Formats: sequence, C-alpha cells, structure tokens
Amino acid sequence: VLKPRGVVEQLPAYHPPLSGRQGLRCDFNENAAGCSPRVLKKLRSLDAEDLARYPEREPVEAVLADHFDLRPEEVLLTNGVDEAIHLLCETFLSEGDEVLIPVPTFAMYELFAAATGAVVKKVQAGPQFEFPMRELARQVSPRTRLIAIANPNNPTGAVARAEDLLALADAAPDAALLVDEAYYEFYGATLFKESRRRPNLFVARTFSKAYGLAGLRAGILAGSTEALAAVRRVASPYSVNNVALACLPQALVDQAFVTNYADQICAQRERLQMQLAAWKVRFCPSQANFVLFEVGEAHARFVDAMRARRVLVRDRSRDPGCSGCVRATLGLPHQTDQLIAAMAEVFIELGLVPPGVTP
Amino acid sequence: VLKPRGVVEQLPAYHPPLSGRQGLRCDFNENAAGCSPRVLKKLRSLDAEDLARYPEREPVEAVLADHFDLRPEEVLLTNGVDEAIHLLCETFLSEGDEVLIPVPTFAMYELFAAATGAVVKKVQAGPQFEFPMRELARQVSPRTRLIAIANPNNPTGAVARAEDLLALADAAPDAALLVDEAYYEFYGATLFKESRRRPNLFVARTFSKAYGLAGLRAGILAGSTEALAAVRRVASPYSVNNVALACLPQALVDQAFVTNYADQICAQRERLQMQLAAWKVRFCPSQANFVLFEVGEAHARFVDAMRARRVLVRDRSRDPGCSGCVRATLGLPHQTDQLIAAMAEVFIELGLVPPGVTP
Repeated sequence: VLKPRGVVEQLPAYHPPLSGRQGLRCDFNENAAGCSPRVLKKLRSLDAEDLARYPEREPVEAVLADHFDLRPEEVLLTNGVDEAIHLLCETFLSEGDEVLIPVPTFAMYELFAAATGAVVKKVQAGPQFEFPMRELARQVSPRTRLIAIANPNNPTGAVARAEDLLALADAAPDAALLVDEAYYEFYGATLFKESRRRPNLFVARTFSKAYGLAGLRAGILAGSTEALAAVRRVASPYSVNNVALACLPQALVDQAFVTNYADQICAQRERLQMQLAAWKVRFCPSQANFVLFEVGEAHARFVDAMRARRVLVRDRSRDPGCSGCVRATLGLPHQTDQLIAAMAEVFIELGLVPPGVTP
Repeated sequence: VLKPRGVVEQLPAYHPPLSGRQGLRCDFNENAAGCSPRVLKKLRSLDAEDLARYPEREPVEAVLADHFDLRPEEVLLTNGVDEAIHLLCETFLSEGDEVLIPVPTFAMYELFAAATGAVVKKVQAGPQFEFPMRELARQVSPRTRLIAIANPNNPTGAVARAEDLLALADAAPDAALLVDEAYYEFYGATLFKESRRRPNLFVARTFSKAYGLAGLRAGILAGSTEALAAVRRVASPYSVNNVALACLPQALVDQAFVTNYADQICAQRERLQMQLAAWKVRFCPSQANFVLFEVGEAHARFVDAMRARRVLVRDRSRDPGCSGCVRATLGLPHQTDQLIAAMAEVFIELGLVPPGVTP
C-alpha cells in the first residue's frame, strides 16, 4: 500500500484562516492600500503572448540585482519567500540534521524543515519577545544545518541586531543562516548586501508586504554566488509566473510609492502603540507593519467581535509564548481610524479595559 | 563550511533555452495562438486588492472539481505540473528509494526525484519510441516508490494504453504512479477520473498547453482523497498566484475555445506528419501538439537555420534514444505554413532531403 514518508504523516497541517475575509484586512500583514499604479497599468497591458509563454526569470533577476547593486548570480527570484525557505531546506537538510528556530515565528520554517526529516529545535524568545540570541548560539551543534530568523520577527515585530546575526552566522559556519527580511521596508536595517560576502548567510525579501503584491507571489533570496548556485540546482525554472515577472520592475521603479507607504505605516504603528499604552494593553514594540498585543483569555471572542465590525485581526494565542495575544496589521490613517474605533468598542463590550481607562 | 547535500551537488543543471525567443515559438509546446479572450478580459479586470491579497486556492479547487465531476478533496491545484511532481517526490521518496522513469521523457521527473536522494532507474523506450511497459513492470521492486509517465509522452508524442497503465499501478501498489496528461487535449484518452478510485494513481493536467496559460503557472493533480491529503501536507498554501486563480474558471468555462484549438492542432499535426512522410523524414507518430523527427547529424545546424528564419524548434538529440532528433510544436494553419516552408528551405540548404524528393 502506498504510504507517505513517516515525517510527512507527522507534519502539522497548516490551514491559515483565508476564507470569508470580508472587511478591513488587518489579519495577514498585507498592504491593504494596494500596489503602485504603475503595476496595475502594466498588468492591464499584458497580452495573450505574456500568458502563453513559459516564464523567463533571468532578465528580471538582472533587473533586481541592478536595483540592489548586486550581481545577478547573487539573486534568486522565488515563488514568494515560501519557495525560498523550501529550497533552502531541500538544498541543505538531510534526515536527522538539526534546524534552529527562535519562536514564536513564521510557521513555514518549521513546516518545510520538518518535511525533510530534520530535527527542529525551537528556542523560546524572552519575556518581552526579545530574540534569544545567546541561547541560539549555545544550541548550535555540528549537526546544525539551518537557522531561520525573521527580522523583524512575525508575529512579534521584534528585531535582532545586525551584529548579533552576523556573530551567529560566524558561530555556525556549517549551517545556512536565513535572515527573512519580509518586513524590511518598515524597519530599515538590513543584511541584504552582507549575504554576498558570507558563504552561509542568505537574506530573503518579499513583494508581498510593502509592495502590496502578495497575490503575485514573488520573493527574493540573496546569497553568495556559490551558495545560491547550489540552491538553483533544486529550483524549478518556471516557478515565478509571467505576471509577476512583468510587474516587478514597475514595482521597483516606483520607490517613492513604497517609501511613502512605509512612512505612513510607521506613523500609524506609533499611533496604535500609543493608543494601546493609553489603554494599558500590553504589546510588543514593533518594527514591522503589525502590532502584537495581549487581550488575555478573551482572545477568540475579541477576534470574533472585531470580525462582527468587519475588521479582521489574527488570533496568535497558540503561538509559543503568545498566550492571549492578537495581531493587527496596520494600514493607512483612515484604516487605522477604523481599526482603533473597532478595538475601542470591543474592549468595552468584552469588559477588557482596566478601571479608570476610557477607550 | 556550508555544503549542500551530496545529491544536490550531483544534480544535473537544467537550463532550458529560454532566452532570445524571437519568432514563431515552436520550441516549448506552448499555445502560440494564445488563450481564450475571456481570460484576457478577466486579467484586465483585476484590481489592486486582487494583487495585494494572499491567494486562496480552495474555492478554485472546488470549481475545478465541479468541472471534472470530482470532489474538491480529489483535486490539488499546483504551481504548474512542476510543483505537482516536486510534491509527489517530497511526499513519497526517501534516500535510497527507487523511481522508475521510461525515457526519453520530460526532464523534471528525474530532477525532482534525484533531489530527494532516490535512485532513478531509466527504462529505454522501444525503437519506435513505444512505451516499455513490460520492462517497467519487470523493474518494479519493493523499493519502487514512484513511477512517472507522461502520456502522451514528451518529446515523442507516443502514448501508453490505459489498461497497461492501470496494470502497472496494480503491479506496483507501494509506489505512486504519476500519469502526466499535460497533452491530454490533443489526445483524448485519460485516467483522470480513475485516480479517485486508485490509492496509488495520480493524474496531472496543465493549463500551460492547450489553454495557452504557461505564463500563469497552473497545474492540477488528481488523486484519491487520502493520497492527496498526504501531498497537501507538504504543499505551500500560497503557491498558486491570484491571477491564475482568477483566470482559471474563465479558461474552463470557455471549453469551445479549447476544443476548437485542439481540433486545429490535431489537423495540423496530421498535415506535418504527411509532409514529413513525403520528405521521407522519420518521425514519431504523435498524439500531442508537437512532432519529433529525425534530422541526423545536422540537428544543431537545422535548429540554427530554422532560427535564422525566425522559427524556433527544439534540438532533442541529447535525449536518450533521440540522437539526431528535433521537436517542432504545432500551431494554427498559418503558423504551420510558416513552419513547413522554413523546414523545406532548411532541408534543401543542409542537403538533407533524399534524392528524388522535392521539398
């Protein structure tokens, strides 16, 4: 009888709550304001030949490399960062290898790593969701082959310092260190260009967040020429679709759009955090386009009551160390108005605001 | 020092000749006439939200299932058939397992299988490119975990009989049998609906060929509910982009377009094969949208001379058993005019036509 590999049978099923997403989408860290108009214009100019041809990735990798002042060999375009993670796991992990992941973090690192049969060691963040850099370094063993770190982290918005990440890369020379900078545009510090000089450092970026193109599926994996050559061997030549390939150069050219959007999000982040502080709601200070805050036992009712007001936020209470926590993605000022107004109502409705505080 | 897994270092690099494809594209088995106008209309109606949202695959899987009279659990939508192959390998293959592949065939079976560390056993087709069904059955061992068959086959256009494929599935109950029906629309026989009843049978279809949507990256993997549930565990939830998800239902609804296109291609296939016979050029009778024919030692010069006439055909002479062979994809009548006219000129130029035959 046909049976899947043992590790596949044991994999957790991953079902993000994607259905019925009606209302203000503060649940998936998307750009709810939409992409650059240049991208839409390009989309609408595509013709039958653009759809009928197999994608050719290399010319767009050259455009990306040029934009980031890297060489084309140092850049791999992927079907979202998900594919980059998947490929790194497939390139470097064998059964019984060890993978280090600080938690809480993005679910796909564990999923793709565990699918290879590697042993995933999770290292818990500190009480304020600080990155457990010392403990990560301590856990490095000769079998450690991958360390995956989202910086800024998801779902916390916490950040690791560049020098700590580089020290970790040095402390684990036999392991690939993936620094996933999906939220870079809302933070500003980066190791993107360090990756070319470090044989075991990979840095990922995405077009799904600040650029507003989660639906197109495009991510970038940067690394040294040699390390990326190995990753390319397991990559499918056609994994990134032609619509993404046609639109990405337009998205990149319109940097003013992205910068302006990120600036607005950072201002709204400050605003939401001040509001949470005024309400005496605990939150993790964020460098991303979302804020994780503590609602307590009522987390599920909170999310439902927000949904009833057509504002979607994400229950993260099952993430390690996130008991009672909810994550809200930031939008433009009018969207933040709507988010905060709904939160104020829900806090009152659920009796969650401390005495003396008026939401 | 960071090193890729041993099997990755030994993988052959796969570089399809995608660059500089100017002219009539008879080289990648694409639909050179383009997709249904309904798809283009839908494409142009997409807005910023369609691009900004993460893809939600399930509703489109339900549409596909309905179209094919299957249950949604029996259908997995993939990022092209490439992802389906990749997922099957990841779900069922461990290091040292065996994979059976009749050759010549589509390159990605071997590539994805070898990347898992499985041993790929290639079984050579017969002298007329007949599927080596008996030898395949003979090679099944207790370690055989995957058998991958393109039917119709690429690059030959040869077909296997349904009863032989089902007998092979029965003879290898511990192995997944993938029947890749990428060229189904130009053939007509299918095991698509058999897959729901057979726990080890998977059937793949694509939107890249008859539907003219290779650039959107969408394939379908059909199988039994239980077998597909295992495959879903290793699948990324967002691998199929929103443009594909929005356009596929439109492509499916316009069956008249696909049927009409396939009918035209089959007529042009007959025409090209009659012409090759008249020229006394050996070819493999095809049930797909291309014909493989034998040019001999001049294969590379033939392809170059065709390119000089702005007709792209594909040198397949390095495929096992295909020494001296070239593959040409069929198009609409006026495109076949152009293909045949260019071939006639090139045959004369290279002195390849036998005495007494006038191209």
